[in-house]
Amino acid sequence: MTSQVDAGALTAVLDGRWAELRGRLRDRMTATKLADSYDLDRETHRAQVFEQLRELVAAGHPKLGFDREYGGAGDVGGSVVSFQLLGYGDLSLMVKAGVQWGLFGGAVQMLGTRRHHERYLPGIMSLDVPGCFAMTESGHGSDVQHLRTTATFRDGEFVLDTPDDDARKDYIGNAARDGRMAVVFAQLVIGDRSYGVHAFLVPIRDEAGRPMPGVRIEDCGPKAGLNGVDNGRLWFSGVRVPREALLNRYADVAPDGTYSSPIESDGRRFFTMLGALVRGRVSVAGSAGSATQRALTIGVRRAETRRQFARPGGDEEIVLLDYLAHQRKLLPALATTYALHFAQEELVTMLHEVHTSSSPDERAQRVLESRAAGIKAVATWHATATIQAVREACGGAGYLAENLLPGLKADTDVFTTFEGDNTVLLQLVAKGLLTDYRDNFADLSPLATARLVAEQLMGAVLERWPAPKLGSPSLFDRQWQRDLFADREQHVLAGLARRLRAAASSDRDPFDVFNDAQDHVLLAGRVHIDRLVLEAFVSAIERCADSSARALLERVCDLHVLSNIEADRGWFLEHGRLTPPVAKKVVAEVGALCKELRPHARTLVDAFAIPEQYVVTSLG
Amino acid sequence: MTSQVDAGALTAVLDGRWAELRGRLRDRMTATKLADSYDLDRETHRAQVFEQLRELVAAGHPKLGFDREYGGAGDVGGSVVSFQLLGYGDLSLMVKAGVQWGLFGGAVQMLGTRRHHERYLPGIMSLDVPGCFAMTESGHGSDVQHLRTTATFRDGEFVLDTPDDDARKDYIGNAARDGRMAVVFAQLVIGDRSYGVHAFLVPIRDEAGRPMPGVRIEDCGPKAGLNGVDNGRLWFSGVRVPREALLNRYADVAPDGTYSSPIESDGRRFFTMLGALVRGRVSVAGSAGSATQRALTIGVRRAETRRQFARPGGDEEIVLLDYLAHQRKLLPALATTYALHFAQEELVTMLHEVHTSSSPDERAQRVLESRAAGIKAVATWHATATIQAVREACGGAGYLAENLLPGLKADTDVFTTFEGDNTVLLQLVAKGLLTDYRDNFADLSPLATARLVAEQLMGAVLERWPAPKLGSPSLFDRQWQRDLFADREQHVLAGLARRLRAAASSDRDPFDVFNDAQDHVLLAGRVHIDRLVLEAFVSAIERCADSSARALLERVCDLHVLSNIEADRGWFLEHGRLTPPVAKKVVAEVGALCKELRPHARTLVDAFAIPEQYVVTSLG
Repeated sequence: MTSQVDAGALTAVLDGRWAELRGRLRDRMTATKLADSYDLDRETHRAQVFEQLRELVAAGHPKLGFDREYGGAGDVGGSVVSFQLLGYGDLSLMVKAGVQWGLFGGAVQMLGTRRHHERYLPGIMSLDVPGCFAMTESGHGSDVQHLRTTATFRDGEFVLDTPDDDARKDYIGNAARDGRMAVVFAQLVIGDRSYGVHAFLVPIRDEAGRPMPGVRIEDCGPKAGLNGVDNGRLWFSGVRVPREALLNRYADVAPDGTYSSPIESDGRRFFTMLGALVRGRVSVAGSAGSATQRALTIGVRRAETRRQFARPGGDEEIVLLDYLAHQRKLLPALATTYALHFAQEELVTMLHEVHTSSSPDERAQRVLESRAAGIKAVATWHATATIQAVREACGGAGYLAENLLPGLKADTDVFTTFEGDNTVLLQLVAKGLLTDYRDNFADLSPLATARLVAEQLMGAVLERWPAPKLGSPSLFDRQWQRDLFADREQHVLAGLARRLRAAASSDRDPFDVFNDAQDHVLLAGRVHIDRLVLEAFVSAIERCADSSARALLERVCDLHVLSNIEADRGWFLEHGRLTPPVAKKVVAEVGALCKELRPHARTLVDAFAIPEQYVVTSLG
Repeated sequence: MTSQVDAGALTAVLDGRWAELRGRLRDRMTATKLADSYDLDRETHRAQVFEQLRELVAAGHPKLGFDREYGGAGDVGGSVVSFQLLGYGDLSLMVKAGVQWGLFGGAVQMLGTRRHHERYLPGIMSLDVPGCFAMTESGHGSDVQHLRTTATFRDGEFVLDTPDDDARKDYIGNAARDGRMAVVFAQLVIGDRSYGVHAFLVPIRDEAGRPMPGVRIEDCGPKAGLNGVDNGRLWFSGVRVPREALLNRYADVAPDGTYSSPIESDGRRFFTMLGALVRGRVSVAGSAGSATQRALTIGVRRAETRRQFARPGGDEEIVLLDYLAHQRKLLPALATTYALHFAQEELVTMLHEVHTSSSPDERAQRVLESRAAGIKAVATWHATATIQAVREACGGAGYLAENLLPGLKADTDVFTTFEGDNTVLLQLVAKGLLTDYRDNFADLSPLATARLVAEQLMGAVLERWPAPKLGSPSLFDRQWQRDLFADREQHVLAGLARRLRAAASSDRDPFDVFNDAQDHVLLAGRVHIDRLVLEAFVSAIERCADSSARALLERVCDLHVLSNIEADRGWFLEHGRLTPPVAKKVVAEVGALCKELRPHARTLVDAFAIPEQYVVTSLG
C-alpha cells in the first residue's frame, strides 16, 4: 500500500513561481553542512549564528531583496522565499537574518532615501553594519503608534531620549551582542509639537563594540527559544544624531526646523510607514510554514516506522500511522499545511507585484497588508498546534532535544505574538473588510474598529452581501465547498456590521460596542482568510500538470476543507448551513479521507523536498 | 469593580480534605527560598535538584506515602497532595522526587514484600539509595506488556539481558547521574517458558558511582524541559541478581525454579502490578493542575496591570483583561482549572480509600485506574493548552525565561505522553465503560478494545442506557447541565457499543473494526471524564459554607460547563441535543460570563494560594 504519485510532481506545484530559486537554495543548503544548535550554550549559539550570517553573505543571500543599484538583485518575492527556505534550518539564523536584512535593512530601504541607501545599504548587505530594528518598547508592543521614546529637534540635530523604563526599547534582536546601529522609532518633537512616530538611524556601539555615549544596552537573557538571537533592551539619554539620521522618505525636517511631509495626517503617515514594512510579516508566515513542514516530515517518518501493540490474534505490531487516531493527529494538519503553503505563495506574489510596481496602488497595498496580517496569524497558530501534535505523536522520543521537535516548538512559539500579535492582526483583517479597504491607513489598533463604529463607516458593507442560497450538498463538490466558505464569510461579516451599526446608533461607548463584538471581529478575520486559503489551493491544483499528482492534491484539498468544516461545524449547524446528518457525514468523511491518504503520507511530506540533513533524526 | 469575595473562603474549598497538610506545605515552601532554575546549565541544574531532594528528606516529605512500620506516615492521599504542591515549584524537582519516592519507592512498596521493605524502604526515604523505575524501552513505551528485556532464572539467580538496542531501557529518570539501583521490568524466563513481565531490584552503580559490571548507562542528553532530571538509558548484559531481587508480592520463584502466583493469567498479573502503581499517574495529574494554576496566576496578574491602546476619545489605555478576547483566552480556562482541581481532589480521596483499605475491592481498584487515566489525560492536555494561551496572552514578555512561562511550558509538555500516553489512556477509560469494569485487567493496549469486539463482551452496555428525554433548557439550571453531560456520555457510549457490535458480528478483522471506531472510543472516554469533572465541581460547591464564595463558584461552574458545551456544540447540534438558537445563546452566555467574572479574576487565582515566590515575575 504505497503511493504511486511522484513526489517531484507535487514539489513542482509547491515550488511555484520561484521554483528555480528554491532549487538553488536547497542545493546550497544540502551542500552546506550547518552545525547543530540544540545543545549549545547561549553565547556559543549566538556566535555560531553570527558566523552563519557571514556564510549567507558569502553566498549572496542578502542581495536578493535589495535594489540593483546598490548591488542587490531586486527580487522582492525571491527574498521572502529565501527566508522561507532558511526556515527549514536553525530558526535563530532565520530570525537573525530577518532582523539584519529584513527589518533593519528593510527599514533603511523602504523608509530612507538615496542618501541613506548609498551610505548604508552596501554595509548592511555585507554585514559590516550589523543593525537593529528598535520599535517595540516595554510598555508599547502592539500599540506602536503610542510609543514614548522622543527625538527632539534641537540645534539642527535630533536628540533621542527614553523618558522612563516603560519606554525602553525591548526584545530588540541584534541589540545585546552584535548591533552597531539601530533604526529607532521615536516621537518626533519640534518645539512644542509632536509629529508622531518617525524612524532614525542611530549608532548604538562604536567600532570596539562599546555602547555609544548616552546609550545603555541590556541583555534580555534566556528565552523560550531562538537563543541564537541576541535580544536586548536599549535606553537613550540625550543621544544626538544629525538631521540626516531621519529616514525621510515620508517626512523631513529642514535645517530651520520646518517639518514637511506628503502625507498630512500623523497617523496615516505612520501607518503608511508600517505598511512599507509588511515584508517581515510575510517572511514570518513563510518560515512558520517551513517549520511546520519540517515537523510533519519528522512526524510522518516516525509514524511510518514505529510500531506499537500487536494485532489481535497475531504477533506483528501495528505501524503507528495505521491507527485512525494517529492519522487524525497528522493528516488534516498536513492537508492544511499544503493549503497554507499555496496561500503563502500567492501572498509572496502579491507582495512582489506591489513592491516592484512603478506606480503602487494604494488599495492594493492595503489589501496586501490585510492578507499578510491574516495569513501570518493563521499560519503561525497552525504551526504551534501542528508542532505540538507532532511532538505528542512522537512520545518521549519527541521530547529529546536531539530529535529537533523541542527546538522547533520553542523557536516557533513566539511567532504567534511577534511581527504583530495574532489577535490584533485578525482584527486588522476584519477592519479592512468592514471598510472595504477604503479606510486611509492600516491602524493596528483593535480599537480602530471601535473608532469605525463611532464614525459610522460600515453602511456599505451590508448592501454588498446578499444572502446566498446553498444547494444540496455533495461534500466533495469543490464549488459547493467554495460557496460554503464564501457564504460563511459573508454571513459573519454582515452580522458583525449589523451588530456594530445597531449598537453604534445607540449612545453606548464605542469601546463597549466594539468589545462586545470582539469575538465576532476575530471570527470575521479568520473565515475571510479561510476562504482565501481555499481559493489559493484551488488555483494551485489548476497549475498541476501531472494527472496523478493532481488527483492526489484534490483529495488533500478535500481533507483540508472537510476538517475545517468539521472543526467549525457548530457554526454551520447553528446557522442552518449544514443539517445534522450532513455534519455527521463530514466527520465520517474526514476519517475516511485520512484512511485514503494514509498511503500517500510519506510522498506528501517528501514533496516538501526539505534537505535531508534537517529531517534526519533517531525518530525514523 | 473589584471582587467582594474572600479568596480565603475559596481556598478552603479548594484545599479540601488535606487542607491542614496543604497549609503546612505552603508555609514550608514560603519559608524555603528555593533557587531559580531557568538559567542553569544542565549539570548545575541536576546538582541543584539533587540537593533540593535532600532538603525534602530533611523536611520529612518522603515519609508521607510510606507505611508507618518503616518510618513513614501512611498517608497515601497526603503523599499525592505533597507532589501536587511541589508542582508549584521547579517541575524537575517534582519529577525527580516522583521518580525516587513515587515510582522507584512505590514499586518496592507495592510490588515487593517485607524482605524488600525492611531492607530498602528506609534507604529509599533517606535518599541513601537513589533509584530508577526502569520500565519503558526504546521499542516499547505504551505497550509495556511486550517489553523485551529478559530475566532468566539460572542456578538460583536471575540473569538480566538486553537483547538489542530496541530493548534498552529509555528515558529513565535518575539513571544518567544519580541512581544506584533500579526496579527493572523484564520478561521472567524459567527454562523454556516466559511468565510475562516482572519487576527486579537491580544495582546499577557501585558506591563510587561507577556502573556495575554488565550494566551500560547512557545519558539521554538535553530535553525540551525537565533538564534537572537525569534521564538515561540502560543496557544489561548477563547481570546476575539473587533470587530475592524479584519483587514478589504477586509472584515468586522457589529455589528450585518453581514459579508460583496467586494470579493465574500472566496478563492479568502484569496489569494488576501496573494497577498498583496508579499513584504516579494521579500525581502527574495533580502537578499538571498546579502548573496550570501557576501560569494562570501569572497571566491574570499581567492582564490586570498591562494596558494597551487608548480608549477611543480618551487618553487612558485599556487594561488587557477588559478586552473580551483576553477574557476568553484566560477565564474559561480558569473555570475549567477549578473544575479539574475538584476532580483531582476526588480522585486523590478515591486513591487514598482504595490504597489504605484492608480489603481492597477489585472493582473499586479498576474504577480508580480508569479515573486516574482519564483525569490525567484531560488535566495534562488542559495544562498544555492553557499554559500556551497564557504565554501568548503575555506577548514577548511571556517568551522571556525569567518570566517563568517558558519553563512551565517546556516542563509540562511531556506530561501528555508520560505516565501513559493520553490517547492510550482515554481508550482505557472507554474500555472500562464498555465492560462496566468487569474485564479482569486494565490492559493499556488500545487493541484491548479490539479484543473486546472479538470477544463480544459489550452486550450489557446497550441495555444499561435508556434514551433520556431532555427538557427545554435553562442554560444555568445545574440539573439540566448535568443531564446534558450524562446524556452525551450515554449516547456516545451506546453508539460506540452498537457500532462495535454490528461490525463484530460481521467477519471483519477485529483491528479494523476497532480502528474505524477509534475516534468514537476517544470521545467516549473524554465525555465520561467531562461528566465526572462536572459532578466533582457540583460536590465542591455543596461543601462551600461561605455564601458569597459559593455564589461565585456557581458562576465559575457555569462558565466551565457552558464553555465545554460551546466547544462541543457541533456534537450537541448534530444529535439534536441543542437547537441552533440555544447553541447561539450558549456562545453569547460564555461571553457574558467572562464579563461578569472579570472583576473576580484576581480573587480566583489568589485563592490558589500559591506561595508568592513562585508567581512573582516582571509581568505584573
